[in-house]
Amino acid sequence: MNALQHPHGLALDKQIQATRAFTNIRQASTALAAPLSAEDCQVQSMPDASPVKWHLAHTTWFFETFILERFLQGYRAFDPQFRLLFNSYYNSVGEQYPRPQRGLLSRPSLETVLAYRNHVDEAVRTAIAQHTACDEDFDALLELGLHHEQQHQELILMDVKHMLSCNPLHPAYAALPLRAAAHQPEPLQWQTFDGGRYQMGHPAHAGFAFDNERPAHEVLLHPYQLAHRLVTQGEYLAFIEAGGYRTPDYWLSLGWDTVCTQGWRAPLYWQQTDDAWSVFTLSGRRDLDPDTPVSHLSYFEADAYARWAGVRLPTEAEWEQAAASQDNVLQPSPNLFETGALQPLPAPRPDPTCRLTQMKGDLWEWTASAYAPYPGFRPGPGAIGEYNGKFMCNQYVLRGGSFATPASHIRPSYRNFFPPQARWQFAGLRLARDASAPN
Amino acid sequence: MNALQHPHGLALDKQIQATRAFTNIRQASTALAAPLSAEDCQVQSMPDASPVKWHLAHTTWFFETFILERFLQGYRAFDPQFRLLFNSYYNSVGEQYPRPQRGLLSRPSLETVLAYRNHVDEAVRTAIAQHTACDEDFDALLELGLHHEQQHQELILMDVKHMLSCNPLHPAYAALPLRAAAHQPEPLQWQTFDGGRYQMGHPAHAGFAFDNERPAHEVLLHPYQLAHRLVTQGEYLAFIEAGGYRTPDYWLSLGWDTVCTQGWRAPLYWQQTDDAWSVFTLSGRRDLDPDTPVSHLSYFEADAYARWAGVRLPTEAEWEQAAASQDNVLQPSPNLFETGALQPLPAPRPDPTCRLTQMKGDLWEWTASAYAPYPGFRPGPGAIGEYNGKFMCNQYVLRGGSFATPASHIRPSYRNFFPPQARWQFAGLRLARDASAPN
Amino acid sequence: MNALQHPHGLALDKQIQATRAFTNIRQASTALAAPLSAEDCQVQSMPDASPVKWHLAHTTWFFETFILERFLQGYRAFDPQFRLLFNSYYNSVGEQYPRPQRGLLSRPSLETVLAYRNHVDEAVRTAIAQHTACDEDFDALLELGLHHEQQHQELILMDVKHMLSCNPLHPAYAALPLRAAAHQPEPLQWQTFDGGRYQMGHPAHAGFAFDNERPAHEVLLHPYQLAHRLVTQGEYLAFIEAGGYRTPDYWLSLGWDTVCTQGWRAPLYWQQTDDAWSVFTLSGRRDLDPDTPVSHLSYFEADAYARWAGVRLPTEAEWEQAAASQDNVLQPSPNLFETGALQPLPAPRPDPTCRLTQMKGDLWEWTASAYAPYPGFRPGPGAIGEYNGKFMCNQYVLRGGSFATPASHIRPSYRNFFPPQARWQFAGLRLARDASAPN
Amino acid sequence: MNALQHPHGLALDKQIQATRAFTNIRQASTALAAPLSAEDCQVQSMPDASPVKWHLAHTTWFFETFILERFLQGYRAFDPQFRLLFNSYYNSVGEQYPRPQRGLLSRPSLETVLAYRNHVDEAVRTAIAQHTACDEDFDALLELGLHHEQQHQELILMDVKHMLSCNPLHPAYAALPLRAAAHQPEPLQWQTFDGGRYQMGHPAHAGFAFDNERPAHEVLLHPYQLAHRLVTQGEYLAFIEAGGYRTPDYWLSLGWDTVCTQGWRAPLYWQQTDDAWSVFTLSGRRDLDPDTPVSHLSYFEADAYARWAGVRLPTEAEWEQAAASQDNVLQPSPNLFETGALQPLPAPRPDPTCRLTQMKGDLWEWTASAYAPYPGFRPGPGAIGEYNGKFMCNQYVLRGGSFATPASHIRPSYRNFFPPQARWQFAGLRLARDASAPN
Repeated sequence: MNALQHPHGLALDKQIQATRAFTNIRQASTALAAPLSAEDCQVQSMPDASPVKWHLAHTTWFFETFILERFLQGYRAFDPQFRLLFNSYYNSVGEQYPRPQRGLLSRPSLETVLAYRNHVDEAVRTAIAQHTACDEDFDALLELGLHHEQQHQELILMDVKHMLSCNPLHPAYAALPLRAAAHQPEPLQWQTFDGGRYQMGHPAHAGFAFDNERPAHEVLLHPYQLAHRLVTQGEYLAFIEAGGYRTPDYWLSLGWDTVCTQGWRAPLYWQQTDDAWSVFTLSGRRDLDPDTPVSHLSYFEADAYARWAGVRLPTEAEWEQAAASQDNVLQPSPNLFETGALQPLPAPRPDPTCRLTQMKGDLWEWTASAYAPYPGFRPGPGAIGEYNGKFMCNQYVLRGGSFATPASHIRPSYRNFFPPQARWQFAGLRLARDASAPN
Repeated sequence: MNALQHPHGLALDKQIQATRAFTNIRQASTALAAPLSAEDCQVQSMPDASPVKWHLAHTTWFFETFILERFLQGYRAFDPQFRLLFNSYYNSVGEQYPRPQRGLLSRPSLETVLAYRNHVDEAVRTAIAQHTACDEDFDALLELGLHHEQQHQELILMDVKHMLSCNPLHPAYAALPLRAAAHQPEPLQWQTFDGGRYQMGHPAHAGFAFDNERPAHEVLLHPYQLAHRLVTQGEYLAFIEAGGYRTPDYWLSLGWDTVCTQGWRAPLYWQQTDDAWSVFTLSGRRDLDPDTPVSHLSYFEADAYARWAGVRLPTEAEWEQAAASQDNVLQPSPNLFETGALQPLPAPRPDPTCRLTQMKGDLWEWTASAYAPYPGFRPGPGAIGEYNGKFMCNQYVLRGGSFATPASHIRPSYRNFFPPQARWQFAGLRLARDASAPN
Repeated sequence: MNALQHPHGLALDKQIQATRAFTNIRQASTALAAPLSAEDCQVQSMPDASPVKWHLAHTTWFFETFILERFLQGYRAFDPQFRLLFNSYYNSVGEQYPRPQRGLLSRPSLETVLAYRNHVDEAVRTAIAQHTACDEDFDALLELGLHHEQQHQELILMDVKHMLSCNPLHPAYAALPLRAAAHQPEPLQWQTFDGGRYQMGHPAHAGFAFDNERPAHEVLLHPYQLAHRLVTQGEYLAFIEAGGYRTPDYWLSLGWDTVCTQGWRAPLYWQQTDDAWSVFTLSGRRDLDPDTPVSHLSYFEADAYARWAGVRLPTEAEWEQAAASQDNVLQPSPNLFETGALQPLPAPRPDPTCRLTQMKGDLWEWTASAYAPYPGFRPGPGAIGEYNGKFMCNQYVLRGGSFATPASHIRPSYRNFFPPQARWQFAGLRLARDASAPN
Repeated sequence: MNALQHPHGLALDKQIQATRAFTNIRQASTALAAPLSAEDCQVQSMPDASPVKWHLAHTTWFFETFILERFLQGYRAFDPQFRLLFNSYYNSVGEQYPRPQRGLLSRPSLETVLAYRNHVDEAVRTAIAQHTACDEDFDALLELGLHHEQQHQELILMDVKHMLSCNPLHPAYAALPLRAAAHQPEPLQWQTFDGGRYQMGHPAHAGFAFDNERPAHEVLLHPYQLAHRLVTQGEYLAFIEAGGYRTPDYWLSLGWDTVCTQGWRAPLYWQQTDDAWSVFTLSGRRDLDPDTPVSHLSYFEADAYARWAGVRLPTEAEWEQAAASQDNVLQPSPNLFETGALQPLPAPRPDPTCRLTQMKGDLWEWTASAYAPYPGFRPGPGAIGEYNGKFMCNQYVLRGGSFATPASHIRPSYRNFFPPQARWQFAGLRLARDASAPN
């Protein structure tokens, strides 16, 4: 470290900050596993999900592989076999253990994985002391690793919920209050946005963003309207009761195929018994609350609901422009991971200066946009280039974050993505429509 | 018909034109079946393909169901059971015979299907005499029926080729010259196009277009370049020989999965024996000609080739804008169905005023654009609304038509679409890249 | 040919007989195809079935491969590519065209296959003139070829029926009288057979038998009873109405899995509409006749019915011993292929000297015996050894022949076999039980 | 309990014995789990296998459901939901949790399952004190429950081995000596057995046997020979090196299909690296020892090896008759579970009075016999009747027990059974052949 180039105070400050951020974010992951037994952390309930233990190990592997192996001289791997075992999909790093078999790895034990985490955390802290504020590559990879870790924190909650839902005992992950807010959401209102040329995506040199949010570029929007809040479970129930799952007209062709072959009759985790509906939550099975936003929808279901309602889903450009226009004013207490709600909450009353609610947090919102590269997109060099770009096919973009997203992880330009049939993510639905001609 | 409202001459003229178009296009379908036996017309070689007999019957069903049942008073169905038997995917019309089992229907015989065609053709001609030029709905549905028939003409050739390719005897559909042009294609040149706001899609009241080409709307383009011709088989072979099918780096994640699970090592219909490559054509198996455009690529392969070459696929907006800019000048003799070539041909020398070659005909060109509705898209009313909109998911747009597309069927705004793994359509690849900054 | 060893008259007589048998049996196959179009002969309705055209070609291939190539000097193959194309499963002969794709071979045409038959028939007749009565191997292979051809005749009818049943038009193969006999079958009676040591299987030097019927060997039987006739459709309907297809207790575990995953609710070809049952026959769809023997049962269904009825299926040793005991007396006009009935008929009145009816013809009868080699079984040498032995796994034996079996093809020792879930063969059910202790 | 009917001494003695047997056998199951973590006990590595935790719970469920619910008045279920959760396949008891998802049940925890075991064990001991020696049904069900528990002990070892084998870390279940015996097995010798009528199966009133071993009945045997020991890994390697897995001639048709679709090239757990073979054992991956009996063979492989060797597999009647003839003399220290070897051992030198070795223990031996009911077989009443009978289809019988079979669990009449493709059981191969004519 060159003390001249990096004046003492600033560099040290950055190191302290980096160490603190690293420690906090890493601890947040293990905190998520705290209410779970080693057996809970072992199970993989479907090929798309992973065991909690695997998430804890893989995020550690990420720091070991992309930071310690490159930046920490003399670093000794905790266990050289983990390089293969906990590689998710990085072909450039080497072979991978088959994804659908992650739940078969009873060894290493959860205890060993926690020791692995400690070993790597110690080493990363050493590396931070050596490199932060004097090596841009290091800082960028560290930041990427932390955002990667935060993504897996949300995945842990998704995967735990799915795993518990397969158990006829309906176990709870946490004891949650029935819901935080007692009021009913207001009737749906439409907010109008002008058309025109807008900047979209994350600008260069404006802080961290994933490569898929870049480059910032101009898009052309036509005037449109967004609903001021998410669709509720009560509203979605009306779609079901109107025969939504029995009427092919509302569905994309692939969606209707999925409804028929999978026998879908309601969103994931909904169950009907004697004309009463219940919903499996992170707090076990509960009566359906009509005021709560509907979640665990596939793209097919979100799209079908919108078509039934005579409107449509927003594009991601529309969504981002609307979110950006709100972001300048104070959005009061969004329901992100920090609230501890662990569930979506009924929409608050719109604020006079911030009339769209639930844009940040509560539930990811399906957009009508297929996940595609922005004009001029270039994936990063080497293995890091596999992070996002290669998944840009047959997936749709979701925006806005959910109750499981940490506040430091979400941005208006953030692009989440899932295949149109996926339902285990915390995904809901905000309606959009073309703006009528100006009066 | 009200002779006052429809002055004699004009109405009669329109009727004669409509009758002639109808007769010609209907005959073109049966002419495609002429070289085939009843057995050839029976076979369905995969669930995505249909027997030729089914194509001949379904296109007839389309006129019977959407025109004769509605417009021809007293019309008696040729066989009421055909309503179910030859319905492709119109849920609004009623149930459908399972698509993968179309090849099991030995009855009705080809002879009966041809009689069905005659029966319906006669009735449609009567209906034309009664309605053309005095009923807009009739005229619109007749035109739609004819374009529908032309789509199936190309499907017939695709499906016949696939069916014959499954036969170890390598039968030929037609005896074709080795290739029409003797010259080598020129080295690839790049044509530059400006960015800016452009009109895209088919304008209202500008003649026939499918609903998915509408509405016309403005898009914003960034400066870009297109290759002046299609990628050749020789160029694609270099990709194979460079390990293209063994290197995951070039592929989308889903594409690489497909390469591995399907064991792809070359485009569909290519075969390697003792270091020599041959290609199955509508004229049987032939030695690979390096100068011919490469065809029967999936989106995955087109995309991987482009990535290997350091460039990308064009978006459909870029492609359409480029095609529109060329369409004003005379494009000499595009290789469409009317040439009778029945295969893609080596690129001609670029014309000074029309420097992009092969934009019309030869092969459909994969674009980077997921198939999605245009802003403001509204599907047609009733069953006709199922024509296009419900397929807008997990498919990619192809542009430009092929050697199997009739000249009266193609437009610069025409949007063809296939899933990214489909390979049996006549699909090739034109490269694109971002334009460098202006000098 | 050594005229001394084979005295003129006898040898000539044998040649004439062989030629006549060959010609008759070969013509019987083409006669079966006579009511069918080339399109009918093209279709393969499931992987287990084959197109009629393929049957006609494969039986010809058998004579060409095993007789002409070996015995007829200078024989020129009709088309050398047929060696691969029409090989069913003889690994020793070489590669095979994939079985599930037989329906894709529109070429060679039916016309060509018939010419192939003529070409080979002519050559076989020449070979008969040269070899019959002077070469035991030749005579044995010729006889095997003829029995092979007869097996495929029954397969043709099975496969045609299945193919026609897939067609919603319910086409008929032949116009058949509703049924030949007007009387009701008598109530079921039990015939008792003693236990003891019995000879089972086909003795050496006792005329033709397949290798799986040999060697003859002693078995030990315990006293048992057989029902005097087959179970009728009316009796089987009672099982259905008693909840047979909803009660796991009656079923083997694999059988119940099959009922659930396949959604079975009745035998193949049965259909219920508004409380009336119909059955698809070779004469189209017809009302269920309660007096006709139930057919198109899987082993699972035959076994479940027997368990529901409190009895069991016979073993093949029991069946053969009972049949042999009856065979000495005159069984009046069994319903074999020669009757032309093309369907099972109600049981005739038992004859005082021949009290088991329907043992020969009407329907194959499932036995409780897994298909296994007899003690001392040796498959034939070379490719012929693949005829039977390699299929002795996960199949069950059926006995007795059906209305589709030629009279010259069936013997009491004849062992037919199908997997327990197969239903498209002409298979019914005769009940058995242990004999009570003697009074 | 009526002290008059059950004279003090005898009844008490029986109770003490029953309690001791119960306690010992139940403890043996938990002892098997002792070297495993809760995570190890959670994993289900394939649908055919079950988690160790599930085995521990299901065997407990068996006592609770079939004994406590019926015999122990006032018994309160440990958890009423376990009735569904740990029912394996008893339709008469009610619904079952889907078998392939057993590994998803992280709750109840291993700790809770062990508490469940204690709860039930205590109650069963109370029930023994009340019922043993005065209620035949009770005694019979208790004995069945203990044999059921012993079956699951062997399954635990099979399933643990499979689970560990999926882990690239190659973990060991136990540290085992390389092998107990240092000597080479002797060359294979043939022991001759006479034909004739023999008693087969377990006689009534001769102690415990499963229903499938009954009734005892006469069978007719033809003279035959058995190899004096199991086939070794070295001998099997010769089959591999002779192209055994590349030559269809040796295989049943279904077997060859399996070889091709599964890509089999050696027995399960064998791996070849650089021309050296290793085998995964309960002690981790080890070099192949040519003298050890070959294990983890499917029926297909055992049958193919025998065909390659020019001989065959024994029938179960042959095997049982041979075993019975040996059983009268002292078989020195068979390698059953009590030896603690946890692996098959090289064959000992034959004893002059007991010339077949390895008949008891080491490895289960595939027979040529399809698993079928004995003449006169009647399954037990109620749910217990589902124990064996409904699985008598598409399975083959294995005899003799393995190193994982407790000594008190095995009999010469014992019939184990697996589908012909199954390989994870401890199954090997003894050759048989027809005896030559007497000199």
